[in-house]
Amino acid sequence: MRHDHLLTAKQLSREDIETVLDRARELADDPEAVGDRHADTLLALCFFEPSTRTKMSFGTAMKRLGGDTIDMGSVESSSVKKGESLADTVRVIEGYADALVLRHPREGAAKMASEQVSVPVVNAGDGAGHHPSQTLLDLYTMREQAGGLDDLSVGIMGDLKYGRTVHSLAHALTNFDVRQHFVSPESLRLPRSVRYDLHESGAQVREHEELDEVLDSLDVLYVTRIQQERFPDEEEYRKVAGQYQIDAETLDGHEDLAVMHPLPRVDEIAPDVDDLPNATYFQQAHNGVPVRMALLDLLL
Amino acid sequence: MRHDHLLTAKQLSREDIETVLDRARELADDPEAVGDRHADTLLALCFFEPSTRTKMSFGTAMKRLGGDTIDMGSVESSSVKKGESLADTVRVIEGYADALVLRHPREGAAKMASEQVSVPVVNAGDGAGHHPSQTLLDLYTMREQAGGLDDLSVGIMGDLKYGRTVHSLAHALTNFDVRQHFVSPESLRLPRSVRYDLHESGAQVREHEELDEVLDSLDVLYVTRIQQERFPDEEEYRKVAGQYQIDAETLDGHEDLAVMHPLPRVDEIAPDVDDLPNATYFQQAHNGVPVRMALLDLLL
Amino acid sequence: MRHDHLLTAKQLSREDIETVLDRARELADDPEAVGDRHADTLLALCFFEPSTRTKMSFGTAMKRLGGDTIDMGSVESSSVKKGESLADTVRVIEGYADALVLRHPREGAAKMASEQVSVPVVNAGDGAGHHPSQTLLDLYTMREQAGGLDDLSVGIMGDLKYGRTVHSLAHALTNFDVRQHFVSPESLRLPRSVRYDLHESGAQVREHEELDEVLDSLDVLYVTRIQQERFPDEEEYRKVAGQYQIDAETLDGHEDLAVMHPLPRVDEIAPDVDDLPNATYFQQAHNGVPVRMALLDLLL
Repeated sequence: MRHDHLLTAKQLSREDIETVLDRARELADDPEAVGDRHADTLLALCFFEPSTRTKMSFGTAMKRLGGDTIDMGSVESSSVKKGESLADTVRVIEGYADALVLRHPREGAAKMASEQVSVPVVNAGDGAGHHPSQTLLDLYTMREQAGGLDDLSVGIMGDLKYGRTVHSLAHALTNFDVRQHFVSPESLRLPRSVRYDLHESGAQVREHEELDEVLDSLDVLYVTRIQQERFPDEEEYRKVAGQYQIDAETLDGHEDLAVMHPLPRVDEIAPDVDDLPNATYFQQAHNGVPVRMALLDLLL
Repeated sequence: MRHDHLLTAKQLSREDIETVLDRARELADDPEAVGDRHADTLLALCFFEPSTRTKMSFGTAMKRLGGDTIDMGSVESSSVKKGESLADTVRVIEGYADALVLRHPREGAAKMASEQVSVPVVNAGDGAGHHPSQTLLDLYTMREQAGGLDDLSVGIMGDLKYGRTVHSLAHALTNFDVRQHFVSPESLRLPRSVRYDLHESGAQVREHEELDEVLDSLDVLYVTRIQQERFPDEEEYRKVAGQYQIDAETLDGHEDLAVMHPLPRVDEIAPDVDDLPNATYFQQAHNGVPVRMALLDLLL
Repeated sequence: MRHDHLLTAKQLSREDIETVLDRARELADDPEAVGDRHADTLLALCFFEPSTRTKMSFGTAMKRLGGDTIDMGSVESSSVKKGESLADTVRVIEGYADALVLRHPREGAAKMASEQVSVPVVNAGDGAGHHPSQTLLDLYTMREQAGGLDDLSVGIMGDLKYGRTVHSLAHALTNFDVRQHFVSPESLRLPRSVRYDLHESGAQVREHEELDEVLDSLDVLYVTRIQQERFPDEEEYRKVAGQYQIDAETLDGHEDLAVMHPLPRVDEIAPDVDDLPNATYFQQAHNGVPVRMALLDLLL
């Protein structure tokens, strides 16, 4: 991978993605393969917003590589409260660490940070912007499930309007021969700008309001949460959200369909799915470790 | 120890306890005795409630064994805020770590977690339920002080009704030839269910309202805090609590009595006790490290 | 250095300071110089007040030395909330760690802690009191910039009344042949007690209300923040604070002047200074790592 930072899924070519995924595959098989080349590496975890899985996953990845982490702590316990700018914060932290993982509520924060420092910056979420390491683990999971990323039919369902995970994934899939089916209520359709980009890239895209229209043709169904706060009133929310929840019955007769979810879920996937062979979401979360190991290994 | 998880002190046989305590003794003498077999081990610290000593103690134990930890962080900074179930949280975290230490406000949380994951779970407190590693370090401390756990007379004083530490310790002591003396106000007596269990096990148990009744016969006095919020009004609290506080004068003429406390204390043990040979509570806290090293070493 | 603890800059002789700074220089050049003698060392980070850079800097230093840290966490997530005394907290933690770094809002807290425990204590800030490792990294930065600490002219500007950083630095500089120029509004002058101490030590001290009076003669300008809450009303604050802010124009014709700041800054140094050769404050923050490595190495 010929990048100094990982800021957005858009920056990744097919070759970049395959390089990371191949390396992740190697490291999943043999975590010792990196030897001790990261034994002195310190990764700074700079999370300006709550996170469990992304932060733990990067921390685990760095430690499994043989290095260690230093944690900025929560915003409440940091100098940010004293009015320090993000630029100053990262310029200080670059003196402590060999790379930075940054989550920040402001779109573009990671890009700005990367222009301030001379160590690699990984964007772990910048507001409504990007979360590219999530996209890489999503792609890794799809490839592991399907044996490859070409000639696939992928459904993406739920809140397609606000979900940064969805936008990044949709862009990344245009590098492969994938038919993308977007399933959502009219009010949560993919934003016009994303649709435009996908169209420009020549991607095979269709939109649906009902999962039934497309379920039979899918290899992968990627479910995301519909948040109540997107709706004017609770009743409207219930009416819509219920149509995009899946359970064991939904999946009856679709044994080969891999169900994915970036987690956390609330009720969009019923617990009775967890024990079916379709349930791929916990494995997906676990895949964050080898994928982030690969990413850090390649950036450092 | 033939267990996959440590969920409650009740699950521990005399043999289990002795196995952990013997191993702890070895590791206290020679922390290097484990070699580098835990060099690649990651322990997840999942504390859904505040903790200083338990969390630091487990973290220290894992690091003294040569491994490392990953911390879920506080509930406020985690996905739990987004409505994720405990079952989902631990199923994600099992993909990052080789074992989980869990503290949760809900009784039974650790047991539930242990049924969801395939890595060892250690219960570090589940509401009014159990806190078995505390019991093990209590037993270790008693054994170190008295040279053994048989033919001992142990007083347990304070809030015997709500203290989970007390209930676990009382159960565990039934594995040994120990006379248990419970000292508390009537309103904070040991719960009927615990008294029943102790009676069934054939334990030698007596209850007292005054420490004086029994002080002369004790080898160990285990003090716990009486919390003001258990009482309808402040005056009632002061009247009762004062009778169960000890100071240097209380201990006059009892040089061989080991005074223990699970900490934190507020005023139930006066500072003038700290410098007496009786004061065993800081050593007791420190014993958490070798005991938890032994526990992790045996579970992993 | 012949000290068991680092509690205040006042305790440091010229020889002590030079010992730490020389060791820091060695470790900056070759972090491997310590070998693996700290491989089993655990440093407890006990921060009872918010901190980013000090806490991360100590954590980084310990890890760069090959050891590891255990973190007490925030006060909100600790036993302190349950009413535990600081003395009890540190007596427990000394059983876990080989040294303690302590920040606490109460002046004298670190000294008190050092009297309770048998492991080294480093004061990382005690209220309006001391923060001696900051002073050491300030001195290190000046020495690196100027090639030595004698025959220097140092300006210290901003809030000289409340800034503990300033008081410690002023005391420490009396060990060297340094002319100290204090620049502040009348209302934020150096406290009488500090002026008295400096006078007693025979230091070369002058006070100014305008930076212009002294700018031409300085080798180093150490800027600190003037906090709005020190002033009765916002207008008064704006009038005063503006006079003690510097920008590229202020520094025009002073290419050799090193501008330092303990950070975080708000607007007392304009961003257009960041790219000038004068800007030494980020390097200063980074110097915290080798200086704290040296300090821990010497204390342990």
